[in-house]
Amino acid sequence: MTSAEGMQRLTDCRDRVDDIDVRILELLNERTRVVEEIGRVKRELGLPIYEPKREDEVFHNVTTKNSGPLPPEAVKRVFERIIDEMRQVQRARMIAQQAGHAEQGQE
Amino acid sequence: MTSAEGMQRLTDCRDRVDDIDVRILELLNERTRVVEEIGRVKRELGLPIYEPKREDEVFHNVTTKNSGPLPPEAVKRVFERIIDEMRQVQRARMIAQQAGHAEQGQE
Repeated sequence: MTSAEGMQRLTDCRDRVDDIDVRILELLNERTRVVEEIGRVKRELGLPIYEPKREDEVFHNVTTKNSGPLPPEAVKRVFERIIDEMRQVQRARMIAQQAGHAEQGQE
Repeated sequence: MTSAEGMQRLTDCRDRVDDIDVRILELLNERTRVVEEIGRVKRELGLPIYEPKREDEVFHNVTTKNSGPLPPEAVKRVFERIIDEMRQVQRARMIAQQAGHAEQGQE
């Protein structure tokens, strides 16, 4: 492989990474929308937002379906971050709604 | 919405989340394979594995293409985790290769 060939291969690989990242991003946003719907249903039913058992199911789903090369512990850590970020979005939304209700109550 | 309808909706949402997660997982593994190829090309060209400028490009790519509802800071933190995990995979592979070379050298 010449230096020019190598640089071209690097460029191609980076384009592929950028493309994969945009697809991951779209799925993350789709996931956030579904998680928000879960939050709405739970509030309407009066169910707790945080359910550790469900989180275990999420980890079980991805780690058992993982064929690599990313190791299972790495997969788990990435999904821990995803779950944590979506929980923060939910929390921010709840606080905003409660503030909205409080303001309405004052009128 | 009755309680039964709500529970059914929760089940449907969770199935959708599980499905999205498997698609994210596939993309993470595809990304890992491309990152491994980048590592091989870089080693052959004698280029450094770690390039902070390229990481900035990765963050720029996903944050500028993000249309939400996941906030940009959350997107950045998820990709920080993804990049970090793949860097660890690269590092482990390099150490394994160096150990392999050392063993070969002893023969």
